[in-house]
Amino acid sequence: MAKSKFEYVRDFEADDTCLPNCWIVVRLDGRNFHRFSEQHEFKKPNDDRALQLMTKCAQTVMQELEDITIAYGQSDEYSFVFKKKSRWFKRRASKFMTHVVSQFSSSYVFYWKDYFKDQQLLYPPGFDGRIVLYPSNQNLKDYLSWRQADCHINNLYNTVFWMLVQRSGLTPVQAQDRLQVNEVTTKKIKLPKEAEEKEVEVTRIRTKVVPLHCDIIGDQFWEEYPEILADDS
Amino acid sequence: MAKSKFEYVRDFEADDTCLPNCWIVVRLDGRNFHRFSEQHEFKKPNDDRALQLMTKCAQTVMQELEDITIAYGQSDEYSFVFKKKSRWFKRRASKFMTHVVSQFSSSYVFYWKDYFKDQQLLYPPGFDGRIVLYPSNQNLKDYLSWRQADCHINNLYNTVFWMLVQRSGLTPVQAQDRLQVNEVTTKKIKLPKEAEEKEVEVTRIRTKVVPLHCDIIGDQFWEEYPEILADDS
Amino acid sequence: MAKSKFEYVRDFEADDTCLPNCWIVVRLDGRNFHRFSEQHEFKKPNDDRALQLMTKCAQTVMQELEDITIAYGQSDEYSFVFKKKSRWFKRRASKFMTHVVSQFSSSYVFYWKDYFKDQQLLYPPGFDGRIVLYPSNQNLKDYLSWRQADCHINNLYNTVFWMLVQRSGLTPVQAQDRLQVNEVTTKKIKLPKEAEEKEVEVTRIRTKVVPLHCDIIGDQFWEEYPEILADDS
Amino acid sequence: MAKSKFEYVRDFEADDTCLPNCWIVVRLDGRNFHRFSEQHEFKKPNDDRALQLMTKCAQTVMQELEDITIAYGQSDEYSFVFKKKSRWFKRRASKFMTHVVSQFSSSYVFYWKDYFKDQQLLYPPGFDGRIVLYPSNQNLKDYLSWRQADCHINNLYNTVFWMLVQRSGLTPVQAQDRLQVNEVTTKKIKLPKEAEEKEVEVTRIRTKVVPLHCDIIGDQFWEEYPEILADDS
Repeated sequence: MAKSKFEYVRDFEADDTCLPNCWIVVRLDGRNFHRFSEQHEFKKPNDDRALQLMTKCAQTVMQELEDITIAYGQSDEYSFVFKKKSRWFKRRASKFMTHVVSQFSSSYVFYWKDYFKDQQLLYPPGFDGRIVLYPSNQNLKDYLSWRQADCHINNLYNTVFWMLVQRSGLTPVQAQDRLQVNEVTTKKIKLPKEAEEKEVEVTRIRTKVVPLHCDIIGDQFWEEYPEILADDS
Repeated sequence: MAKSKFEYVRDFEADDTCLPNCWIVVRLDGRNFHRFSEQHEFKKPNDDRALQLMTKCAQTVMQELEDITIAYGQSDEYSFVFKKKSRWFKRRASKFMTHVVSQFSSSYVFYWKDYFKDQQLLYPPGFDGRIVLYPSNQNLKDYLSWRQADCHINNLYNTVFWMLVQRSGLTPVQAQDRLQVNEVTTKKIKLPKEAEEKEVEVTRIRTKVVPLHCDIIGDQFWEEYPEILADDS
Repeated sequence: MAKSKFEYVRDFEADDTCLPNCWIVVRLDGRNFHRFSEQHEFKKPNDDRALQLMTKCAQTVMQELEDITIAYGQSDEYSFVFKKKSRWFKRRASKFMTHVVSQFSSSYVFYWKDYFKDQQLLYPPGFDGRIVLYPSNQNLKDYLSWRQADCHINNLYNTVFWMLVQRSGLTPVQAQDRLQVNEVTTKKIKLPKEAEEKEVEVTRIRTKVVPLHCDIIGDQFWEEYPEILADDS
Repeated sequence: MAKSKFEYVRDFEADDTCLPNCWIVVRLDGRNFHRFSEQHEFKKPNDDRALQLMTKCAQTVMQELEDITIAYGQSDEYSFVFKKKSRWFKRRASKFMTHVVSQFSSSYVFYWKDYFKDQQLLYPPGFDGRIVLYPSNQNLKDYLSWRQADCHINNLYNTVFWMLVQRSGLTPVQAQDRLQVNEVTTKKIKLPKEAEEKEVEVTRIRTKVVPLHCDIIGDQFWEEYPEILADDS
């Protein structure tokens, strides 16, 4: 069994080390979650069980993997931020990406029944992931603000859309048309407090991983938790 | 909610398109599966339930994702080969890697009970993944041969090791010592047929995904299934 | 003089190894050569001295650097093909790119006077470079055919354009308009033999580096010189 | 002339955009300059003509290319620092590397006679180049300090080595042995002022590119020229 004859194929693997001294962000997204949420009868616009399960999975990822300082999630996506100085797996990009999505995906199935009770999981769901580097603290804050602003806009749209469908009796197509016409007006709508509270999920470490619901676009959050960006954290 | 102010952060995402006209291989490995197999009382040297579950997950990956022409697995690892001409997700490396490990990981938990029955899954397992490109058919065959040769050597070692422990009453340390002394002799040992049959797991598509157990190092396999390497497959 | 304190900065250099078993092509282009050719009074459409100087530089590159099997040039660009199996500088992309453009650029100034005689070189010219990998022989042939087809079209256009300006007395703007109107007709024009002969420059090695002028799109060239693509060449 | 049939080969070119918001450093090194300096009778340990020619080339590079804020050189190497915010050529790594080495190489031949007078240039020299990214100002300063410390140590060694050869009549081998034995003592030797002055070459822009000779490891230099690291410079 000539092993050595074939081993040259190892040289084809490329080095994918992340640039040192940069924040490493892995963001995952559900695959075909529009269909998945319909088939599993998610409540609209926000399903508490689904959001809580997502956050449980994010907590598991942060407990199992090393050097994650903060995670931010909404709907079917979650971002994980690894420390600038992390040397985990020699900063190989593929390791960061695949460990995050793998742990998240297996946790999603494992903890499903804790949140969905009698609602059966019909098939194993999929998530994809990507990796992005941010050199400065400001770049990282702006990344998280970008996700939160995006989340807020989506939440706003969905909340009004489902009000029109559920309370005003419009069809989905009619609701969509109405929202396009009134795009400017819509942006001025004040969300009901309950919608806002479901809006964001932030988890972070002090000694343990805890979920938070708060604004991360302004300065207040970062002043309150300086350890998140601490150089030696 | 100034969204545009933050959107510049999208430009930090790097392009990771795979070189065209190359075979794309994604290989995944179990994380800490030594511990995992002990805690879940896997039979040694090979646990049929675990091998069959791995193959079920590989079949699911091949059914759910596009353009996978062959997969090869052993123990807690599995390799998936995407077609040379695949244009799936514009050949972005992160998409290939994360979709494979995500679907595999969620399937592992989802189908666990079908193979392990009353043996409870204690926690969600993790898998990592990597991606490698192979320009020629010969390179790809040599990659698969490398994995099969590696599998055979490990299987041989494990089979003899556990015989010494289970039948000859040696302690694990004694068995290890014995095998080091007799490295040459060990290589000449003929494996019992039952061990060999558990050795390899190959799945492939004709119209459906089927598991096979056969030698892929020689030419016979490739002559029998020319469609695996077919340029337009 | 604490040297070690600073040496961590070496870790920021990324690995840029080229995938094994692929043809490595480095193509260079003159920087602002439109301006350069005017200031140095190049004859239009083709300046023999400039073409011969380009080819002399390409020969020098092929003699000084290792593993280049063929080079193809036109106008102010030149492509160099390194062997599939080359292990030169561990296949680091930056080494291939920069050595080629550096040797070419210094040679351009060094040999200028041999071709331009009393015509003074007014300033040191610049060239940029890029690197591309091609997995199969067909991909490589198609790359070279792409450059030759591009060259032929440019040469055709320039030859007719300058005929209109030099012999028919049109202004450059008028000539440009006329060519746009008659695009289809233009493509049918048969180039004068002298224009065609100046069209392409191919250099290659047998034991020494020689310039050739011939068609490389058809099969004949490749059948005549099989050693160019020979696996072990 | 079917051009379109071949154009698919363009898709094989990989994207090599540099991560935004990082300092981009291109460092070039002479190829076989040990031999080159012997054949051109460079004075030892430092040849003023060669150092001044190197600096003239660096100035030319800084004048011709965009967004270079500082360059640092010694012996046969030179580092060029592009601004963090540079958008030159969309931050493509290959463009930065090849433009720098090309302009430097052609300038070396072009300006040779201004510094070496009757000493003929025997053949066109070569330089290789590499590119490295530095996310923070401190990383960049440490990079430059690393080069200057390296330069100082080499200069020290060479100065003492050539003193032993030229003034004490030792053979090169004897001088080498002597230096190895007395490594600690050597480090305490105070360089003659003339050697130190030849040590470093720093060029930078205010409105024009000027060469400087000074210490860049301490804070003083950076406090004196804050515009070098200015965010909007």
